[in-house]
Amino acid sequence: MTDLIISSPGNPRLKSIAALRRRRHREETGRTLVEGYEELQLALDAGVTPEALYWCPELMLDPATQARVVDQVRASGVETVQLTRAAFEKAAYREGPDGFLAVVPAVTRHARDLTVGQAALTVLTQGVEKPGNLGAMLRTADAAGADAVIAADPVTDWGNPNLVRASKGTVFSVPVASDTTADALAWLDEQGIALVATTPDTDLLHTDVDYTGPVAIAVGAEKYGLTDEVLHHAAYQVRIPMVGKANSLNVATSAAIVIYEAVRQRGVGRDSTTGRTGPESH
Amino acid sequence: MTDLIISSPGNPRLKSIAALRRRRHREETGRTLVEGYEELQLALDAGVTPEALYWCPELMLDPATQARVVDQVRASGVETVQLTRAAFEKAAYREGPDGFLAVVPAVTRHARDLTVGQAALTVLTQGVEKPGNLGAMLRTADAAGADAVIAADPVTDWGNPNLVRASKGTVFSVPVASDTTADALAWLDEQGIALVATTPDTDLLHTDVDYTGPVAIAVGAEKYGLTDEVLHHAAYQVRIPMVGKANSLNVATSAAIVIYEAVRQRGVGRDSTTGRTGPESH
Repeated sequence: MTDLIISSPGNPRLKSIAALRRRRHREETGRTLVEGYEELQLALDAGVTPEALYWCPELMLDPATQARVVDQVRASGVETVQLTRAAFEKAAYREGPDGFLAVVPAVTRHARDLTVGQAALTVLTQGVEKPGNLGAMLRTADAAGADAVIAADPVTDWGNPNLVRASKGTVFSVPVASDTTADALAWLDEQGIALVATTPDTDLLHTDVDYTGPVAIAVGAEKYGLTDEVLHHAAYQVRIPMVGKANSLNVATSAAIVIYEAVRQRGVGRDSTTGRTGPESH
Repeated sequence: MTDLIISSPGNPRLKSIAALRRRRHREETGRTLVEGYEELQLALDAGVTPEALYWCPELMLDPATQARVVDQVRASGVETVQLTRAAFEKAAYREGPDGFLAVVPAVTRHARDLTVGQAALTVLTQGVEKPGNLGAMLRTADAAGADAVIAADPVTDWGNPNLVRASKGTVFSVPVASDTTADALAWLDEQGIALVATTPDTDLLHTDVDYTGPVAIAVGAEKYGLTDEVLHHAAYQVRIPMVGKANSLNVATSAAIVIYEAVRQRGVGRDSTTGRTGPESH
């Protein structure tokens, strides 16, 4: 326990952490923030090495168990800094912080840096604005065992703290990349991945295409959907059936519905440890 | 144009509107708030009669078109009150208000007040905490053409302004009800509606049950899921396959995945105006 201890909320280190809430500062430094015990665990499990870990035992839900991760991170040579409650609350960006905040390298991968398998299931998002929506899509992509999520012409960066938070840390476990739309589409072509683009303006239902081969499911920006550049490039344009009064499903919900149609067709998770292999007899 | 005009942000009427952000005040008065042009339109389309409409032309995105709804509401005998920008921003609860705010009767329906069809598709939520999650589920229920959404032992009320907002006003178009878990389950039994309960602790996949008959899809609280009371009552306990690192999907995402499996099996939306009736030949 030779940790540096910061007790003053006015400490300049805390200011430099808070500065990472700004995209520009994240891009200049190549760093971002992970807040929360669960999120940090996911990042560590995914092989992320923090540059520094800030922790506050008073805020931990279960200090006896959770403080072990501090020892583990310290043992790997990472600087660990203990904060008082007042100091931690200054640095933390979410309400109800749980005493864990790490500075980690930001994800700056391009599609060409991805390695995907033979029958890759990938997700292409274009121009999605809300970090919460991208984070929610990552949780779904993680659950579905997707090979990659590519943000084309993203409005937000993968290091956005609200995105990291909404993703529950899955931004570190799901392979993600950012690119221009043109480069993302070129990469899909090179990999022989068929593009299925979601749009309300088509007759084909999303359940009427085959997702068992290499496929990318594309969803567009909240307000305007996919651009013609993506729609014209698609092997299939599909719509999710909607019969309601409101005009659309949330973009992350739409992505989840189509991703899980692919999961159904592929039989993903059917033979998991608790899984079964046939339909119930009743 | 004989509207009352309020220009002072200190006007007591504005305080009484703001008080409706508190659940207790909503329950005492039986009223709630609808904010936003699109949300108001949905409420009006669903037959809701506002008790009063507060409007601010300066904040409207398209005053020429949108002001017509004020005339329409006024013509139906509802009090309409014009606010200055400063006054409206005092009364509004969301960032970036668009100049429409109505006081409407709160939804206080019980399951026994619902009328559902022969092969009803219903959604049962139990103890869901976040208004945003309930709102998101309503959007999905609306899109899927669900017959009803019942909140069992709800933590929030249907009039919660954040729920109304997240639902995009579909809380007024989808039949919703609140009840104790026992009363909700009793009602499902009376109606002959089979309960399909989602839980990670089962072998049966959500895609392995038949949703074409009268069915209720149940999802539980964010942290703890469904209680044993619901699980033991279910005709089927099903799990959504998950193969990822994180421990679960968001509750609204889970609901959407199962609801849309029912949509697929039922062929909902297949023969819509732009719809088609068979799979594409390629």
